[in-house]
Amino acid sequence: MSVLIVGSTALDSIKTPNAENPRLLGGSASHAAVAASYFSPVKLVGVVGEDFPKAYLKLYRRHGIDLAGLQIKPGKTFHWSGEYELNMNNRRTLLTELGVFETFTPTLPAAHQRTPFVLLANIAPSLQQHVLDQMQRSRFVVADTMDLWLNIALDDLVKLLKRIDGFVLNDSEAQQLTKEDNVFVALKKLHKLGPKYVVIKQGSHGSILSGPKGIFICPAYPLRKVVDPTGAGDSFVGGMMGYLASAKGSVDDNLRRAMIHGSVTASFCCEGFGLKRTTRINRAQIDQRVKELEKLTKF
Amino acid sequence: MSVLIVGSTALDSIKTPNAENPRLLGGSASHAAVAASYFSPVKLVGVVGEDFPKAYLKLYRRHGIDLAGLQIKPGKTFHWSGEYELNMNNRRTLLTELGVFETFTPTLPAAHQRTPFVLLANIAPSLQQHVLDQMQRSRFVVADTMDLWLNIALDDLVKLLKRIDGFVLNDSEAQQLTKEDNVFVALKKLHKLGPKYVVIKQGSHGSILSGPKGIFICPAYPLRKVVDPTGAGDSFVGGMMGYLASAKGSVDDNLRRAMIHGSVTASFCCEGFGLKRTTRINRAQIDQRVKELEKLTKF
Repeated sequence: MSVLIVGSTALDSIKTPNAENPRLLGGSASHAAVAASYFSPVKLVGVVGEDFPKAYLKLYRRHGIDLAGLQIKPGKTFHWSGEYELNMNNRRTLLTELGVFETFTPTLPAAHQRTPFVLLANIAPSLQQHVLDQMQRSRFVVADTMDLWLNIALDDLVKLLKRIDGFVLNDSEAQQLTKEDNVFVALKKLHKLGPKYVVIKQGSHGSILSGPKGIFICPAYPLRKVVDPTGAGDSFVGGMMGYLASAKGSVDDNLRRAMIHGSVTASFCCEGFGLKRTTRINRAQIDQRVKELEKLTKF
Repeated sequence: MSVLIVGSTALDSIKTPNAENPRLLGGSASHAAVAASYFSPVKLVGVVGEDFPKAYLKLYRRHGIDLAGLQIKPGKTFHWSGEYELNMNNRRTLLTELGVFETFTPTLPAAHQRTPFVLLANIAPSLQQHVLDQMQRSRFVVADTMDLWLNIALDDLVKLLKRIDGFVLNDSEAQQLTKEDNVFVALKKLHKLGPKYVVIKQGSHGSILSGPKGIFICPAYPLRKVVDPTGAGDSFVGGMMGYLASAKGSVDDNLRRAMIHGSVTASFCCEGFGLKRTTRINRAQIDQRVKELEKLTKF
Protein backbone atom coordinates (compact mmCIF):
# COMPACT_ATOMS: atom_id res chain seq x y z
CA MET A 1 0.00 0.00 0.00
CA SER A 2 1.08 3.60 -0.38
CA VAL A 3 1.78 6.45 2.03
CA LEU A 4 0.66 10.03 1.65
CA ILE A 5 3.18 12.41 3.19
CA VAL A 6 2.37 16.08 3.76
CA GLY A 7 4.85 18.51 5.26
CA SER A 8 7.51 21.05 4.49
CA THR A 9 9.74 20.88 1.43
CA ALA A 10 12.66 23.22 1.93
CA LEU A 11 16.21 24.22 1.22
CA ASP A 12 18.40 23.80 4.29
CA SER A 13 21.70 25.57 4.82
CA ILE A 14 23.48 23.70 7.57
CA LYS A 15 26.60 24.79 9.41
CA THR A 16 28.59 22.58 11.75
CA PRO A 17 31.94 23.29 13.42
CA ASN A 18 33.64 21.48 10.50
CA ALA A 19 31.58 22.26 7.42
CA GLU A 20 29.05 24.48 5.72
CA ASN A 21 26.43 23.08 3.33
CA PRO A 22 24.24 25.61 1.57
CA ARG A 23 20.79 24.90 0.08
CA LEU A 24 20.57 21.15 0.67
CA LEU A 25 17.27 19.41 0.01
CA GLY A 26 15.43 19.49 3.33
CA GLY A 27 12.07 19.83 5.07
CA SER A 28 10.06 17.33 7.08
CA ALA A 29 8.23 15.90 4.06
CA SER A 30 11.43 15.48 2.00
CA HIS A 31 13.18 13.50 4.75
CA ALA A 32 10.09 11.43 5.55
CA ALA A 33 9.30 10.73 1.88
CA VAL A 34 12.80 9.51 0.97
CA ALA A 35 12.86 7.33 4.11
CA ALA A 36 9.42 5.85 3.37
CA SER A 37 10.33 5.24 -0.27
CA TYR A 38 12.59 2.32 0.72
CA PHE A 39 9.50 0.40 1.79
CA SER A 40 6.39 1.64 -0.06
CA PRO A 41 5.16 3.92 -2.86
CA VAL A 42 5.02 7.52 -1.60
CA LYS A 43 2.81 10.46 -2.56
CA LEU A 44 4.34 13.77 -1.55
CA VAL A 45 2.27 16.88 -0.83
CA GLY A 46 4.09 20.16 -0.39
CA VAL A 47 5.07 23.43 -2.05
CA VAL A 48 8.27 24.76 -3.56
CA GLY A 49 9.18 27.97 -5.38
CA GLU A 50 10.41 28.44 -8.91
CA ASP A 51 13.99 28.46 -7.59
CA PHE A 52 13.69 24.84 -6.49
CA PRO A 53 16.57 22.94 -8.14
CA LYS A 54 15.50 20.50 -10.86
CA ALA A 55 18.06 18.08 -9.46
CA TYR A 56 15.93 17.78 -6.31
CA LEU A 57 12.81 17.00 -8.35
CA LYS A 58 14.84 14.29 -10.08
CA LEU A 59 15.98 13.00 -6.73
CA TYR A 60 12.36 12.64 -5.55
CA ARG A 61 11.47 10.87 -8.80
CA ARG A 62 14.47 8.55 -8.55
CA HIS A 63 12.90 7.36 -5.27
CA GLY A 64 9.61 6.71 -7.06
CA ILE A 65 7.94 9.56 -5.17
CA ASP A 66 4.65 10.69 -6.75
CA LEU A 67 4.88 14.48 -7.18
CA ALA A 68 1.28 15.11 -8.35
CA GLY A 69 0.66 16.83 -4.99
CA LEU A 70 3.81 18.99 -5.06
CA GLN A 71 2.87 22.55 -5.94
CA ILE A 72 5.42 24.70 -7.75
CA LYS A 73 4.52 28.35 -7.09
CA PRO A 74 5.91 31.70 -8.19
CA GLY A 75 8.32 32.87 -5.52
CA LYS A 76 11.05 31.35 -3.40
CA THR A 77 11.30 27.96 -1.76
CA PHE A 78 11.19 27.86 2.04
CA HIS A 79 14.79 28.34 3.20
CA TRP A 80 16.02 27.38 6.64
CA SER A 81 19.51 27.91 7.94
CA GLY A 82 20.88 26.50 11.17
CA GLU A 83 24.12 25.97 13.02
CA TYR A 84 25.10 23.00 15.19
CA GLU A 85 27.48 23.08 18.13
CA LEU A 86 30.24 20.52 18.51
CA ASN A 87 28.17 17.94 20.38
CA MET A 88 25.24 18.12 17.89
CA ASN A 89 22.67 18.30 20.69
CA ASN A 90 22.37 22.05 20.44
CA ARG A 91 21.46 23.87 17.30
CA ARG A 92 20.32 27.41 16.64
CA THR A 93 18.32 28.78 13.75
CA LEU A 94 20.22 31.44 11.84
CA LEU A 95 17.53 32.25 9.27
CA THR A 96 13.99 31.32 8.27
CA GLU A 97 12.68 32.56 4.92
CA LEU A 98 9.18 31.15 4.46
CA GLY A 99 8.79 32.13 0.80
CA VAL A 100 5.94 30.28 -0.94
CA PHE A 101 5.49 28.19 2.23
CA GLU A 102 3.87 31.20 3.93
CA THR A 103 0.65 30.83 1.95
CA PHE A 104 0.78 27.05 1.43
CA THR A 105 -2.56 25.25 1.37
CA PRO A 106 -2.20 21.52 0.87
CA THR A 107 -4.75 20.62 -1.78
CA LEU A 108 -4.92 16.92 -2.53
CA PRO A 109 -5.35 15.55 -6.05
CA ALA A 110 -8.40 13.27 -6.19
CA ALA A 111 -6.17 10.22 -6.57
CA HIS A 112 -4.48 11.05 -3.22
CA GLN A 113 -7.65 11.22 -1.15
CA ARG A 114 -7.97 7.49 -0.57
CA THR A 115 -4.36 6.74 0.39
CA PRO A 116 -4.50 4.20 3.24
CA PHE A 117 -1.49 5.45 5.23
CA VAL A 118 -1.18 9.15 5.97
CA LEU A 119 1.79 10.90 7.53
CA LEU A 120 1.16 14.48 8.57
CA ALA A 121 4.82 15.42 8.89
CA ASN A 122 5.82 18.56 10.77
CA ILE A 123 3.78 21.52 9.47
CA ALA A 124 1.19 23.84 11.06
CA PRO A 125 -1.53 21.77 12.75
CA SER A 126 -4.22 23.74 10.91
CA LEU A 127 -2.74 22.53 7.61
CA GLN A 128 -2.50 18.99 8.98
CA GLN A 129 -6.23 19.21 9.73
CA HIS A 130 -6.93 20.62 6.29
CA VAL A 131 -5.40 17.48 4.80
CA LEU A 132 -7.58 15.26 6.97
CA ASP A 133 -10.66 17.20 5.81
CA GLN A 134 -9.91 16.01 2.27
CA MET A 135 -9.15 12.37 3.06
CA GLN A 136 -11.88 9.85 2.30
CA ARG A 137 -11.01 6.57 3.98
CA SER A 138 -7.57 6.47 5.47
CA ARG A 139 -6.52 3.40 7.40
CA PHE A 140 -3.86 4.85 9.68
CA VAL A 141 -3.03 8.51 10.25
CA VAL A 142 0.07 9.67 12.11
CA ALA A 143 1.07 13.24 12.89
CA ASP A 144 4.44 14.68 13.88
CA THR A 145 4.90 18.19 15.29
CA MET A 146 7.47 20.65 16.65
CA ASP A 147 7.84 22.97 19.63
CA LEU A 148 6.88 25.99 17.50
CA TRP A 149 3.27 24.75 17.21
CA LEU A 150 3.04 24.11 20.94
CA ASN A 151 3.97 27.75 21.40
CA ILE A 152 1.83 29.43 18.73
CA ALA A 153 -0.89 26.94 17.66
CA LEU A 154 -1.66 24.80 20.70
CA ASP A 155 -5.46 24.90 20.23
CA ASP A 156 -5.13 23.70 16.64
CA LEU A 157 -2.80 20.93 17.73
CA VAL A 158 -5.18 19.76 20.48
CA LYS A 159 -8.01 19.62 17.91
CA LEU A 160 -5.81 17.64 15.53
CA LEU A 161 -4.93 15.10 18.23
CA LYS A 162 -8.58 14.02 18.45
CA ARG A 163 -8.57 13.10 14.76
CA ILE A 164 -5.41 11.02 14.36
CA ASP A 165 -4.42 7.44 15.21
CA GLY A 166 -0.78 8.04 16.10
CA PHE A 167 1.16 11.00 17.46
CA VAL A 168 4.95 11.25 17.25
CA LEU A 169 6.89 13.91 19.16
CA ASN A 170 10.21 14.28 20.89
CA ASP A 171 10.83 14.14 24.62
CA SER A 172 11.15 17.88 25.19
CA GLU A 173 7.92 18.51 23.25
CA ALA A 174 6.16 15.81 25.29
CA GLN A 175 7.38 17.48 28.47
CA GLN A 176 6.23 20.90 27.29
CA LEU A 177 2.79 19.61 26.26
CA THR A 178 2.07 17.49 29.35
CA LYS A 179 4.07 19.40 32.00
CA GLU A 180 5.43 16.00 32.97
CA ASP A 181 9.09 14.94 33.24
CA ASN A 182 8.44 11.20 33.44
CA VAL A 183 8.11 9.84 29.91
CA PHE A 184 5.71 7.03 30.92
CA VAL A 185 3.36 9.40 32.72
CA ALA A 186 3.61 11.79 29.75
CA LEU A 187 2.56 8.94 27.41
CA LYS A 188 -0.55 8.32 29.52
CA LYS A 189 -1.44 12.00 29.44
CA LEU A 190 -0.93 12.15 25.67
CA HIS A 191 -3.34 9.25 25.11
CA LYS A 192 -5.99 11.26 26.96
CA LEU A 193 -5.66 13.95 24.27
CA GLY A 194 -6.84 11.46 21.65
CA PRO A 195 -4.24 9.28 19.92
CA LYS A 196 -4.37 5.50 20.42
CA TYR A 197 -0.65 5.29 19.62
CA VAL A 198 1.95 7.69 20.99
CA VAL A 199 5.67 7.60 20.20
CA ILE A 200 8.12 9.76 22.14
CA LYS A 201 11.45 10.18 20.36
CA GLN A 202 14.54 10.41 22.56
CA GLY A 203 17.28 11.14 20.01
CA SER A 204 20.30 8.87 20.42
CA HIS A 205 18.47 7.03 23.23
CA GLY A 206 15.85 5.67 20.80
CA SER A 207 12.10 6.01 21.25
CA ILE A 208 9.19 4.71 23.31
CA LEU A 209 5.85 3.53 21.93
CA SER A 210 2.68 3.33 23.96
CA GLY A 211 -0.28 1.60 22.31
CA PRO A 212 -2.94 -1.08 22.74
CA LYS A 213 -0.21 -3.71 23.06
CA GLY A 214 1.54 -1.75 25.80
CA ILE A 215 4.95 -0.12 25.89
CA PHE A 216 7.74 -0.82 23.41
CA ILE A 217 11.28 0.40 24.11
CA CYS A 218 12.82 0.98 20.67
CA PRO A 219 16.61 1.34 20.57
CA ALA A 220 18.58 3.72 18.37
CA TYR A 221 21.17 2.19 16.07
CA PRO A 222 24.63 2.92 17.55
CA LEU A 223 26.57 5.54 15.60
CA ARG A 224 30.19 6.45 16.28
CA LYS A 225 29.92 9.60 14.18
CA VAL A 226 26.97 11.93 13.70
CA VAL A 227 27.56 14.24 10.75
CA ASP A 228 24.20 16.06 10.76
CA PRO A 229 21.10 15.06 12.74
CA THR A 230 18.78 17.37 10.75
CA GLY A 231 15.78 15.36 9.58
CA ALA A 232 16.52 12.28 11.71
CA GLY A 233 13.11 12.47 13.41
CA ASP A 234 11.39 12.86 10.03
CA SER A 235 13.35 9.92 8.62
CA PHE A 236 12.33 7.85 11.64
CA VAL A 237 8.61 8.47 11.21
CA GLY A 238 8.87 8.25 7.41
CA GLY A 239 10.63 4.88 7.59
CA MET A 240 8.10 3.72 10.17
CA MET A 241 5.10 4.65 7.99
CA GLY A 242 6.70 3.25 4.85
CA TYR A 243 7.34 -0.07 6.57
CA LEU A 244 3.78 -0.16 7.99
CA ALA A 245 2.29 0.43 4.54
CA SER A 246 4.41 -2.41 3.14
CA ALA A 247 3.67 -4.98 5.83
CA LYS A 248 0.88 -7.55 5.79
CA GLY A 249 -1.29 -7.80 8.89
CA SER A 250 -2.48 -5.29 11.47
CA VAL A 251 -0.77 -2.09 12.57
CA ASP A 252 -0.62 -3.58 16.08
CA ASP A 253 1.31 -6.57 14.78
CA ASN A 254 3.74 -4.51 12.71
CA LEU A 255 4.32 -1.29 14.62
CA ARG A 256 7.34 -2.44 16.66
CA ARG A 257 9.27 -3.64 13.63
CA ALA A 258 8.14 -0.52 11.78
CA MET A 259 9.74 1.63 14.49
CA ILE A 260 12.94 -0.43 14.30
CA HIS A 261 13.07 0.14 10.54
CA GLY A 262 12.42 3.86 11.12
CA SER A 263 15.17 3.94 13.73
CA VAL A 264 17.66 2.39 11.31
CA THR A 265 16.65 4.72 8.46
CA ALA A 266 17.19 7.67 10.82
CA SER A 267 20.67 6.37 11.65
CA PHE A 268 21.66 6.64 7.99
CA CYS A 269 20.20 10.16 7.89
CA CYS A 270 22.58 11.24 10.68
CA GLU A 271 25.61 9.99 8.75
CA GLY A 272 25.50 12.67 6.06
CA PHE A 273 24.47 16.28 5.54
CA GLY A 274 20.82 16.75 4.66
CA LEU A 275 19.65 13.78 2.60
CA LYS A 276 23.10 12.99 1.18
CA ARG A 277 23.44 9.65 2.93
CA THR A 278 19.77 8.67 3.08
CA THR A 279 19.45 8.94 -0.69
CA ARG A 280 22.40 6.60 -1.27
CA ILE A 281 21.34 3.52 0.66
CA ASN A 282 19.35 0.47 -0.33
CA ARG A 283 16.89 -1.86 1.35
CA ALA A 284 19.56 -4.51 1.94
CA GLN A 285 21.64 -2.04 3.98
CA ILE A 286 18.60 -1.17 6.08
CA ASP A 287 17.81 -4.84 6.67
CA GLN A 288 21.45 -5.46 7.64
CA ARG A 289 21.27 -2.81 10.39
CA VAL A 290 17.90 -4.17 11.57
CA LYS A 291 19.59 -7.55 12.01
CA GLU A 292 22.45 -5.91 13.87
CA LEU A 293 19.97 -4.14 16.19
CA GLU A 294 18.43 -7.54 16.93
CA LYS A 295 21.84 -8.80 18.03
CA LEU A 296 22.66 -5.65 19.97
CA THR A 297 19.52 -5.90 22.11
CA LYS A 298 19.12 -9.67 22.57
CA PHE A 299 19.49 -11.05 26.09
CA MET B 1 29.71 -18.59 43.94
CA SER B 2 30.03 -15.57 46.19
CA VAL B 3 30.71 -11.88 45.63
CA LEU B 4 33.04 -9.70 47.64
CA ILE B 5 31.78 -6.12 47.78
CA VAL B 6 33.95 -3.27 49.04
CA GLY B 7 32.72 0.29 49.22
CA SER B 8 31.15 2.90 51.42
CA THR B 9 28.71 2.09 54.20
CA ALA B 10 26.95 5.24 55.25
CA LEU B 11 23.99 7.00 56.74
CA ASP B 12 22.13 9.02 54.11
CA SER B 13 19.82 11.91 54.90
CA ILE B 14 17.76 12.48 51.78
CA LYS B 15 15.49 15.42 51.07
CA THR B 16 13.07 15.61 48.16
CA PRO B 17 10.44 18.26 47.42
CA ASN B 18 7.90 16.01 49.18
CA ALA B 19 9.75 14.29 52.01
CA GLU B 20 12.72 14.24 54.34
CA ASN B 21 14.35 10.98 55.40
CA PRO B 22 17.15 11.25 57.95
CA ARG B 23 19.88 8.68 58.53
CA LEU B 24 18.77 5.96 56.14
CA LEU B 25 21.09 3.03 55.49
CA GLY B 26 23.16 4.06 52.47
CA GLY B 27 26.55 3.95 50.79
CA SER B 28 27.70 2.25 47.60
CA ALA B 29 28.53 -1.06 49.30
CA SER B 30 25.21 -1.23 51.18
CA HIS B 31 23.15 -0.74 48.02
CA ALA B 32 25.29 -3.11 45.97
CA ALA B 33 25.37 -5.80 48.69
CA VAL B 34 21.62 -5.89 49.23
CA ALA B 35 21.06 -6.00 45.44
CA ALA B 36 23.60 -8.82 44.97
CA SER B 37 22.14 -10.77 47.89
CA TYR B 38 19.07 -11.72 45.82
CA PHE B 39 21.32 -13.84 43.61
CA SER B 40 24.45 -14.96 45.50
CA PRO B 41 26.13 -15.03 48.91
CA VAL B 42 27.74 -11.64 49.61
CA LYS B 43 30.78 -10.65 51.69
CA LEU B 44 30.71 -6.99 52.65
CA VAL B 45 33.86 -4.99 53.37
CA GLY B 46 33.44 -1.52 54.84
CA VAL B 47 33.59 0.57 57.99
CA VAL B 48 30.97 2.05 60.30
CA GLY B 49 31.13 4.00 63.57
CA GLU B 50 29.80 3.07 66.96
CA ASP B 51 26.66 5.08 66.20
CA PHE B 52 25.70 2.69 63.39
CA PRO B 53 22.17 1.44 64.17
CA LYS B 54 21.95 -2.22 65.20
CA ALA B 55 18.82 -2.44 63.04
CA TYR B 56 21.00 -1.89 59.96
CA LEU B 57 23.38 -4.70 60.98
CA LYS B 58 20.32 -6.92 61.35
CA LEU B 59 19.15 -5.83 57.91
CA TYR B 60 22.47 -6.87 56.35
CA ARG B 61 22.28 -10.22 58.16
CA ARG B 62 18.69 -10.77 57.09
CA HIS B 63 20.03 -10.67 53.54
CA GLY B 64 22.64 -13.29 54.42
CA ILE B 65 25.44 -10.75 54.02
CA ASP B 66 28.72 -11.90 55.60
CA LEU B 67 29.88 -9.06 57.89
CA ALA B 68 33.31 -10.49 58.85
CA GLY B 69 34.88 -7.70 56.77
CA LEU B 70 32.77 -4.88 58.22
CA GLN B 71 34.87 -2.89 60.66
CA ILE B 72 33.14 -1.15 63.59
CA LYS B 73 35.39 1.68 64.76
CA PRO B 74 35.22 4.27 67.52
CA GLY B 75 33.73 7.43 66.05
CA LYS B 76 30.89 8.33 63.77
CA THR B 77 29.59 6.59 60.65
CA PHE B 78 30.06 8.37 57.31
CA HIS B 79 27.05 10.67 56.95
CA TRP B 80 25.91 12.12 53.62
CA SER B 81 23.04 14.49 53.15
CA GLY B 82 21.57 15.52 49.81
CA GLU B 83 18.58 17.24 48.31
CA TYR B 84 16.80 16.37 45.05
CA GLU B 85 14.96 18.79 42.81
CA LEU B 86 11.49 18.01 41.50
CA ASN B 87 12.63 16.15 38.38
CA MET B 88 15.15 13.98 40.31
CA ASN B 89 17.86 14.57 37.72
CA ASN B 90 19.51 17.27 39.78
CA ARG B 91 20.72 16.77 43.30
CA ARG B 92 23.01 18.76 45.52
CA THR B 93 25.06 17.63 48.46
CA LEU B 94 24.11 19.45 51.65
CA LEU B 95 26.60 17.82 53.98
CA THR B 96 29.43 15.25 53.99
CA GLU B 97 30.74 14.05 57.37
CA LEU B 98 33.37 11.40 56.68
CA GLY B 99 33.70 10.18 60.30
CA VAL B 100 35.46 6.80 60.55
CA PHE B 101 35.45 6.58 56.75
CA GLU B 102 38.23 9.18 56.62
CA THR B 103 40.85 6.68 57.80
CA PHE B 104 39.25 3.54 56.36
CA THR B 105 41.64 0.84 55.16
CA PRO B 106 39.87 -2.18 53.74
CA THR B 107 41.60 -5.16 55.30
CA LEU B 108 40.30 -8.49 54.08
CA PRO B 109 39.81 -11.47 56.38
CA ALA B 110 41.77 -14.47 55.03
CA ALA B 111 38.53 -16.19 54.06
CA HIS B 112 37.64 -13.28 51.79
CA GLN B 113 40.82 -13.27 49.75
CA ARG B 114 39.80 -16.01 47.35
CA THR B 115 36.31 -14.79 46.54
CA PRO B 116 35.79 -15.39 42.79
CA PHE B 117 33.70 -12.30 42.03
CA VAL B 118 34.86 -8.91 43.30
CA LEU B 119 32.95 -5.65 43.12
CA LEU B 120 34.97 -2.57 43.97
CA ALA B 121 31.98 -0.31 44.54
CA ASN B 122 32.45 3.46 44.58
CA ILE B 123 35.27 4.36 46.97
CA ALA B 124 38.71 6.01 46.50
CA PRO B 125 40.62 4.19 43.72
CA SER B 126 43.66 3.82 46.02
CA LEU B 127 41.48 1.78 48.40
CA GLN B 128 40.08 -0.21 45.49
CA GLN B 129 43.68 -1.07 44.56
CA HIS B 130 44.49 -1.93 48.16
CA VAL B 131 41.74 -4.56 48.03
CA LEU B 132 43.15 -6.03 44.81
CA ASP B 133 46.59 -6.25 46.48
CA GLN B 134 45.07 -8.66 48.99
CA MET B 135 43.10 -10.83 46.55
CA GLN B 136 44.57 -14.22 45.65
CA ARG B 137 42.74 -15.60 42.67
CA SER B 138 39.70 -13.64 41.69
CA ARG B 139 37.77 -14.69 38.60
CA PHE B 140 36.11 -11.41 37.66
CA VAL B 141 36.79 -7.96 39.10
CA VAL B 142 34.56 -4.97 38.39
CA ALA B 143 35.05 -1.40 39.63
CA ASP B 144 32.58 1.46 39.84
CA THR B 145 33.64 5.07 40.43
CA MET B 146 32.32 8.64 40.74
CA ASP B 147 33.16 12.09 39.40
CA LEU B 148 34.94 13.03 42.65
CA TRP B 149 37.77 10.56 41.90
CA LEU B 150 38.14 11.84 38.35
CA ASN B 151 38.70 15.25 39.88
CA ILE B 152 41.01 14.43 42.79
CA ALA B 153 42.48 10.95 42.18
CA LEU B 154 42.71 10.50 38.41
CA ASP B 155 46.20 8.94 38.46
CA ASP B 156 45.07 6.32 40.99
CA LEU B 157 42.00 5.57 38.90
CA VAL B 158 44.06 5.14 35.72
CA LYS B 159 46.33 2.69 37.56
CA LEU B 160 43.32 0.79 38.84
CA LEU B 161 41.85 0.48 35.33
CA LYS B 162 44.83 -1.63 34.22
CA ARG B 163 44.08 -4.19 36.94
CA ILE B 164 40.35 -4.83 36.55
CA ASP B 165 38.20 -6.83 34.14
CA GLY B 166 35.16 -4.57 34.06
CA PHE B 167 34.62 -0.84 34.57
CA VAL B 168 31.21 0.67 35.27
CA LEU B 169 30.62 4.41 35.17
CA ASN B 170 27.88 6.82 34.21
CA ASP B 171 27.65 8.82 31.00
CA SER B 172 28.81 12.14 32.41
CA GLU B 173 31.82 10.46 34.06
CA ALA B 174 32.66 8.71 30.78
CA GLN B 175 32.48 12.05 29.00
CA GLN B 176 34.70 13.71 31.62
CA LEU B 177 37.27 10.90 31.50
CA THR B 178 37.47 10.53 27.70
CA LYS B 179 36.60 14.10 26.59
CA GLU B 180 34.19 12.42 24.19
CA ASP B 181 30.45 13.09 23.80
CA ASN B 182 29.67 10.03 21.69
CA VAL B 183 29.11 7.08 24.01
CA PHE B 184 30.36 4.49 21.48
CA VAL B 185 33.62 6.36 20.89
CA ALA B 186 33.96 6.83 24.66
CA LEU B 187 33.61 3.06 25.14
CA LYS B 188 36.48 2.45 22.68
CA LYS B 189 38.68 4.95 24.50
CA LEU B 190 37.86 3.39 27.87
CA HIS B 191 38.94 -0.06 26.64
CA LYS B 192 42.32 1.43 25.80
CA LEU B 193 42.74 2.33 29.47
CA GLY B 194 42.61 -1.37 30.35
CA PRO B 195 39.23 -2.97 31.03
CA LYS B 196 37.99 -5.72 28.69
CA TYR B 197 34.39 -4.89 29.66
CA VAL B 198 33.03 -1.36 29.97
CA VAL B 199 29.50 -0.44 30.99
CA ILE B 200 28.25 3.14 30.65
CA LYS B 201 25.15 3.82 32.75
CA GLN B 202 22.61 6.27 31.29
CA GLY B 203 20.11 6.57 34.13
CA SER B 204 16.51 6.14 32.97
CA HIS B 205 17.82 5.42 29.44
CA GLY B 206 19.46 2.17 30.57
CA SER B 207 23.10 1.26 29.96
CA ILE B 208 25.50 0.19 27.23
CA LEU B 209 28.00 -2.68 27.48
CA SER B 210 31.06 -3.01 25.30
CA GLY B 211 32.96 -6.28 25.54
CA PRO B 212 34.43 -9.15 23.54
CA LYS B 213 30.96 -10.02 22.25
CA GLY B 214 30.39 -6.47 21.04
CA ILE B 215 27.87 -3.89 22.13
CA PHE B 216 24.77 -4.62 24.21
CA ILE B 217 22.05 -2.01 24.61
CA CYS B 218 20.49 -2.69 28.02
CA PRO B 219 17.12 -1.05 28.68
CA ALA B 220 15.96 0.44 31.97
CA TYR B 221 12.74 -0.94 33.45
CA PRO B 222 10.01 1.68 32.90
CA LEU B 223 8.98 3.47 36.10
CA ARG B 224 6.05 5.85 36.35
CA LYS B 225 7.26 7.17 39.68
CA VAL B 226 10.80 7.64 40.97
CA VAL B 227 10.81 8.21 44.73
CA ASP B 228 14.58 8.39 45.29
CA PRO B 229 17.27 7.43 42.75
CA THR B 230 20.06 7.37 45.38
CA GLY B 231 21.96 4.10 45.06
CA ALA B 232 20.34 3.03 41.77
CA GLY B 233 23.73 2.76 40.05
CA ASP B 234 25.12 0.74 42.97
CA SER B 235 22.05 -1.52 42.91
CA PHE B 236 22.54 -2.02 39.17
CA VAL B 237 26.15 -3.16 39.46
CA GLY B 238 25.42 -5.13 42.65
CA GLY B 239 22.57 -7.00 40.99
CA MET B 240 24.74 -7.58 37.93
CA MET B 241 27.61 -9.06 39.95
CA GLY B 242 25.27 -11.12 42.12
CA TYR B 243 23.65 -12.61 39.04
CA LEU B 244 27.03 -13.32 37.39
CA ALA B 245 28.26 -15.14 40.49
CA SER B 246 25.09 -17.25 40.50
CA ALA B 247 25.09 -18.20 36.82
CA LYS B 248 26.70 -21.25 35.26
CA GLY B 249 28.93 -20.72 32.24
CA SER B 250 31.24 -17.91 31.17
CA VAL B 251 30.98 -14.23 32.00
CA ASP B 252 30.65 -13.58 28.26
CA ASP B 253 27.63 -15.84 28.08
CA ASN B 254 25.94 -14.37 31.15
CA LEU B 255 26.80 -10.67 31.18
CA ARG B 256 23.82 -9.42 29.18
CA ARG B 257 21.29 -11.15 31.37
CA ALA B 258 23.30 -10.06 34.42
CA MET B 259 22.91 -6.43 33.33
CA ILE B 260 19.17 -6.93 32.80
CA HIS B 261 18.87 -8.32 36.34
CA GLY B 262 20.92 -5.38 37.62
CA SER B 263 18.69 -2.98 35.72
CA VAL B 264 15.56 -4.47 37.28
CA THR B 265 17.06 -4.45 40.78
CA ALA B 266 17.92 -0.77 40.29
CA SER B 267 14.31 -0.07 39.30
CA PHE B 268 13.13 -1.32 42.68
CA CYS B 269 15.77 0.84 44.39
CA CYS B 270 14.27 3.97 42.77
CA GLU B 271 10.81 3.17 44.12
CA GLY B 272 11.62 3.87 47.76
CA PHE B 273 13.85 6.05 49.89
CA GLY B 274 17.31 4.59 50.51
CA LEU B 275 17.06 0.82 50.69
CA LYS B 276 13.44 0.78 51.86
CA ARG B 277 12.05 -0.81 48.71
CA THR B 278 15.09 -2.90 47.70
CA THR B 279 15.07 -4.68 51.05
CA ARG B 280 11.42 -5.69 50.69
CA ILE B 281 11.45 -7.52 47.37
CA ASN B 282 12.04 -11.17 46.50
CA ARG B 283 13.62 -13.04 43.63
CA ALA B 284 10.24 -13.82 42.08
CA GLN B 285 9.46 -10.09 41.79
CA ILE B 286 12.81 -9.50 40.10
CA ASP B 287 12.22 -12.37 37.66
CA GLN B 288 8.75 -11.00 36.90
CA ARG B 289 10.19 -7.62 35.85
CA VAL B 290 12.90 -9.36 33.79
CA LYS B 291 10.12 -11.15 31.90
CA GLU B 292 8.31 -7.84 31.42
CA LEU B 293 11.49 -6.25 30.04
CA GLU B 294 11.72 -9.11 27.55
CA LYS B 295 8.22 -8.28 26.34
CA LEU B 296 8.87 -4.52 26.32
CA THR B 297 11.89 -4.85 24.03
CA LYS B 298 10.88 -7.69 21.70
CA PHE B 299 10.40 -6.89 18.04
